[in-house]
Amino acid sequence: MASISSTITERKQFNQVGTRPVRPDGVDKVTGRARFGADVSAPGMMVGKVLRSPHAHARVLSIDTSRAQALAGVKSVVTRDDFPELAEGTVERLREDSIYDISCNVMAREKVLYEGHAVAAVATTSASIARKALALIEVEYEVLPHVTDVDAAMAPNAPVLHETLFTRGVEPPPQAPSNIAERTQIVVGDVAKGFTEADVIVEREFRTEAVHQGYIEPHACLASVSEDGTCDLWCTTQGHYAVRDTCAQILGMELSSLRVTASEIGGGFGGKTTVFIEPVAVALSRKAQRPVKIVMDRDEVFRASGPTSSASMTMKIGITKEGRITAGEGEFRMQGGAFPGSPVPYGAACTFAPYDTKNVRLISYDVVTNRPKQAAYRAPGAPMCVYAMESVLDELAEKIAMDPIELRLINAVKEGKKSAYGPTFGPIGLVETLEEARSHSNYDQPLGPNQGRGVAVGFWPNYGGATSVSLTTNTDGTVLLSLGTPDIGGSRASMCLMAAEELGIPYEKVRATITDTNSLGYNDGTAGSRVTHSAGMATIQAACDAIDKMRDRAAKIWDIDVEAVVWDDGYAKPASSNAGEFDPMSFAEIVAGSHSTGGPIAGHAEINAEGAGNSFATHVVDVEVDPDTGKVTVLRYLAVQDAGKAVHPSYVEGQYQGGAAQGIGWALNEEYIYGDDGKLQNPGFLDYRMPVASDLPMIDTIIVEIPNPGHPYGVRGVGETPIVPPLAAVGNAVARAIGRRLTELPMSPPKILSALER
Amino acid sequence: MASISSTITERKQFNQVGTRPVRPDGVDKVTGRARFGADVSAPGMMVGKVLRSPHAHARVLSIDTSRAQALAGVKSVVTRDDFPELAEGTVERLREDSIYDISCNVMAREKVLYEGHAVAAVATTSASIARKALALIEVEYEVLPHVTDVDAAMAPNAPVLHETLFTRGVEPPPQAPSNIAERTQIVVGDVAKGFTEADVIVEREFRTEAVHQGYIEPHACLASVSEDGTCDLWCTTQGHYAVRDTCAQILGMELSSLRVTASEIGGGFGGKTTVFIEPVAVALSRKAQRPVKIVMDRDEVFRASGPTSSASMTMKIGITKEGRITAGEGEFRMQGGAFPGSPVPYGAACTFAPYDTKNVRLISYDVVTNRPKQAAYRAPGAPMCVYAMESVLDELAEKIAMDPIELRLINAVKEGKKSAYGPTFGPIGLVETLEEARSHSNYDQPLGPNQGRGVAVGFWPNYGGATSVSLTTNTDGTVLLSLGTPDIGGSRASMCLMAAEELGIPYEKVRATITDTNSLGYNDGTAGSRVTHSAGMATIQAACDAIDKMRDRAAKIWDIDVEAVVWDDGYAKPASSNAGEFDPMSFAEIVAGSHSTGGPIAGHAEINAEGAGNSFATHVVDVEVDPDTGKVTVLRYLAVQDAGKAVHPSYVEGQYQGGAAQGIGWALNEEYIYGDDGKLQNPGFLDYRMPVASDLPMIDTIIVEIPNPGHPYGVRGVGETPIVPPLAAVGNAVARAIGRRLTELPMSPPKILSALER
Repeated sequence: MASISSTITERKQFNQVGTRPVRPDGVDKVTGRARFGADVSAPGMMVGKVLRSPHAHARVLSIDTSRAQALAGVKSVVTRDDFPELAEGTVERLREDSIYDISCNVMAREKVLYEGHAVAAVATTSASIARKALALIEVEYEVLPHVTDVDAAMAPNAPVLHETLFTRGVEPPPQAPSNIAERTQIVVGDVAKGFTEADVIVEREFRTEAVHQGYIEPHACLASVSEDGTCDLWCTTQGHYAVRDTCAQILGMELSSLRVTASEIGGGFGGKTTVFIEPVAVALSRKAQRPVKIVMDRDEVFRASGPTSSASMTMKIGITKEGRITAGEGEFRMQGGAFPGSPVPYGAACTFAPYDTKNVRLISYDVVTNRPKQAAYRAPGAPMCVYAMESVLDELAEKIAMDPIELRLINAVKEGKKSAYGPTFGPIGLVETLEEARSHSNYDQPLGPNQGRGVAVGFWPNYGGATSVSLTTNTDGTVLLSLGTPDIGGSRASMCLMAAEELGIPYEKVRATITDTNSLGYNDGTAGSRVTHSAGMATIQAACDAIDKMRDRAAKIWDIDVEAVVWDDGYAKPASSNAGEFDPMSFAEIVAGSHSTGGPIAGHAEINAEGAGNSFATHVVDVEVDPDTGKVTVLRYLAVQDAGKAVHPSYVEGQYQGGAAQGIGWALNEEYIYGDDGKLQNPGFLDYRMPVASDLPMIDTIIVEIPNPGHPYGVRGVGETPIVPPLAAVGNAVARAIGRRLTELPMSPPKILSALER
Repeated sequence: MASISSTITERKQFNQVGTRPVRPDGVDKVTGRARFGADVSAPGMMVGKVLRSPHAHARVLSIDTSRAQALAGVKSVVTRDDFPELAEGTVERLREDSIYDISCNVMAREKVLYEGHAVAAVATTSASIARKALALIEVEYEVLPHVTDVDAAMAPNAPVLHETLFTRGVEPPPQAPSNIAERTQIVVGDVAKGFTEADVIVEREFRTEAVHQGYIEPHACLASVSEDGTCDLWCTTQGHYAVRDTCAQILGMELSSLRVTASEIGGGFGGKTTVFIEPVAVALSRKAQRPVKIVMDRDEVFRASGPTSSASMTMKIGITKEGRITAGEGEFRMQGGAFPGSPVPYGAACTFAPYDTKNVRLISYDVVTNRPKQAAYRAPGAPMCVYAMESVLDELAEKIAMDPIELRLINAVKEGKKSAYGPTFGPIGLVETLEEARSHSNYDQPLGPNQGRGVAVGFWPNYGGATSVSLTTNTDGTVLLSLGTPDIGGSRASMCLMAAEELGIPYEKVRATITDTNSLGYNDGTAGSRVTHSAGMATIQAACDAIDKMRDRAAKIWDIDVEAVVWDDGYAKPASSNAGEFDPMSFAEIVAGSHSTGGPIAGHAEINAEGAGNSFATHVVDVEVDPDTGKVTVLRYLAVQDAGKAVHPSYVEGQYQGGAAQGIGWALNEEYIYGDDGKLQNPGFLDYRMPVASDLPMIDTIIVEIPNPGHPYGVRGVGETPIVPPLAAVGNAVARAIGRRLTELPMSPPKILSALER
């Protein structure tokens, strides 16, 4: 972390951080004025549509676009021929250079690898012409056998997706291509010995289905390529710099020639951290020399954006009768769709992170199948792996008749302990979340028949990353923040709070703008729970940079040394009476005269944010199972989590509630259903069942605040951890409600009924 | 000027500055893709139109908008009642706080002060409904006597525009209101004594008519006010920060609540440094809660934007028979339309600036009349005053039979001399321009019958001002410049050249963006010939700031002190072999890895640019007068001017040529023609005669380069000086062609014929 200002100090007392002002983007969002991905238009704009594979796996023998191109109103047609040649994909390239995979995913090359894989696209004067044009494109396929299940894909006789994919991480190096892209492992201590020390051992197999992030807003973008090759691209994304970098690499452009503006975003949850239609729109516009807009419909979102992986897992844990974990062993097999890169190693690493365990072995397999290429989904990989982990722990607690929170407290990791996955923890709040959960009134509620209470713990390491923020002052005493991280969860408000706190001016005087890629230095996306921590840190640094300049102006006006001027809650003051007798100068006074005292005053920070603090959560859920229908009703839900410091507590609570809601859907109803034909059977919200408001009780939250020393205000990321415990918590509650343990998600009514009938 | 980087050094050798690359905005501008003021649209956008006064001067007794408001499709109507109350305008306020004047100009209050003055505006669903709505607004006027001529307006019995306007700068303070807003004077030495030392004295009266900047693109803007009061405003302007500040003050908004984006601009020449329709569009949108676009038509541009002042002037100069000026005395009377603020004092100050003269007295009168409020027009005030000055000098040269360049060389001001208007000159290039003009082949061309050669000198002080620039690096080695100064004359290319020069990377790797007011700190507008100097200086500083950071990264990688790392033409290198043996690291290498070595690398500069160097020019023109028609044909034209250092010589030459072309139009044909009814008679390009390409010869140029020590590369502003000499140069050429001196512009055919008949 670059040290930009001498004045940044750790802060423990807050005037504004921790309050709950109205979010600045709120009015525009509720009135419909806010511009989301599909709301941007340009004069002369064409409608772009994508032709998608009807087959799960096929060789593309030929594509004849001549009839489509001859249709009146068709301005451009693109196929694989319009994407630059990429070197033949070797295993090394496929793994090292994900651009190759993304490029092949946004436009199929020699093969289509899943139903919905893009094979061509058109830019036309109307949507109806676009549909006609797509129908006129003749694609000759050689249909190949397919595989959509992770275990089937790992079998020796499985249809192989990539002839150039050889399993990494195994010895000796394999001689034949495989759908197993990589095997990774984490080994700590002596697992065999650990199991000999156990009094009770439980081993189970688990399966979870792929789910979709289910963001309300489909992918949408508008690309406008000029005759000189430069391009303006507007899109809904979690990271417009990543969109720029990816599109530019896929299409052979310089980063400076592609200006990406992030629209408001109607949900992302990780699914908008990559590109699907954006390079296609740029390619269409480049060829048409017109602006081209592509908006996915919901069917396309399900079939051809990036759901999360499905998983098949084995988990084995041994404990003493006093509840101490002696050993743990897991094998995690995830398919991430048609290209390598499932989040399995990250998920595996989260399983034992909350527990002080000496002996752990975790094996992960990253597997490709004939499904859409997975994208990140909130704490990628962790909900599934932790589902397996926390389910087994729950069963062990039952076996030794121990309170499940007590079991976790006995094993809870504390500051100074080395995590099973590597790093040594600093100050963390796991114990506090467990204790808060145990003392909450929910944990004392009596349970009736067919009711059960589930507990689970969750962990996510969080991420910092490259971040740029600029802060400019206006002569009327207002402040503008330039941010490069799309505001999904209220980050504009949070950044304004931190800037106001640091400058010592009212929150209302600060406004934030999400700038385009040409107007501010690079920012990693709104992902990894990084923004409040990292953009917050950069915001504070930028404010301190501005404060240093204001101290300098005051020093010049007073004709004293800048070191003799301090900044104190919105005022420049002499550091001591030795420095001279001067009336404090307010922020407003200094910036009002700034143009003539040396120029406009601004502050800047470009950092690689380190010190993102881990965040732990404990969730407690009560459910009731209807024995006649198998329907599970969530009675009450409590999410307790360490936020380090909650900058805007309402948004922190919203993250806790949102993560829980998504996890409940994943646990109970959501799933990708594939037919034997390899085609998705439920690509719509009627058949893909997400929880709606009436499905859920009020989700109670408790914010624990154990300051993160890696942030001047103690902030930790909170966005991802909340989706980690719910799968297991709900699973454990159902198990205790019906006295039988389901090991396959979702626990939809037929599966519950089937379990009850066993 | 803030010292941002230790590495900024004065540069005399250039690799890229001084070359002529293609301008980056060129392709979009010639293909029509570039978005100008009227090219921006928004969903649900309304058409805004303004109702304008048919009277030159009238009291507005009442405005009834009820019938207009009842018309279907009318979404809002605004009048003076929709603009916040401004304190009753006192003389002090009128002069000190130009916001009051601008507010009253954009929407009339108790009186309309000129034909075309806005009295109401509507936002409607279509242009035809807008026209109907305007016709339904009933305004009751009490018509008052009017005055449009400057001398008439100064007469004691003239109709008074402002009952609260009392002449400033006269003793004793006046008891009655007057159209003379202010009297200012410059007095140096003893003028009476100076005239006694003269061998020849010439005194003449001159008149010039108001002219319009004649930009191709009419004023256009789109305002979108949200329900929370924040506003997005797109407009064609020379300074979007000034638009923001002015609109916000007029409408009582915070600066942070108004985001202004400057479109591409189809010419400004000073006329787009203020606001006309922008506050009206914001007021309409605020009331309609819809986006509102207003586009002026050409008639409105002529009647109700800001032409320059008309002038009435007296000039008297005495010289010895050896050609030495002994004394000069001028009185300059300019009307600037309905509100104070004509540029007369600036123009007066330019008259004797080029000449080392001991005795000077210049009196200026700023006068209001019933005409549209003047706006800046390229070197505001100077072309008229210098026309008077240089005409008299020419006549004196004739009288003592001296070459007109020789006369000017004898009196030319040099480095270290105090200018008559105040400052002491640094290194300047006046003598060099005179000598270059004298040695140019044009000056030797033989002249035929009815042909004449005119010479004139021009001067403009130039301006620096508040400037913010950010420079960001991309990991692929490209660079993005964020500028806040609209690109009128190729400044993107010039800034990219300077950034590339400083960083030591190819020009093609740098791209510039004109950012909006929310994305970059404050910038004064593209005016005062300031951008290449001041934004250039800030660009160089920002590049040096980035270089310092790159040196720091290299030092960290090499584990040596940053002071031991130098930047040399695109590479970080050890300062000496003592520092250690390291291979130089290129710009591309350092930025490629920047995210992990400390974060993205950017450079920033916010400055109050000082040291804008003055620029002098000498123009020589040959004309031929048709004695039958009075038509003047320009045979050849030479513009010689000091650029300090020409960053992009083609654009410097373009400025010289463009200024000459506009000056020729002003001298020969352009004029505002008012009828006795106080109405403009020629509000269109058919009747307002601007020169077109076929009217003009190739305008030859010579760039003199006397480096300006106030800029690291020696740059001077060049945009305004070129319009200063042409009025006099053409006037002198006509006088010598026909043997009679016209003293009134334009020298249109009827005036020439009338002079020939005298």
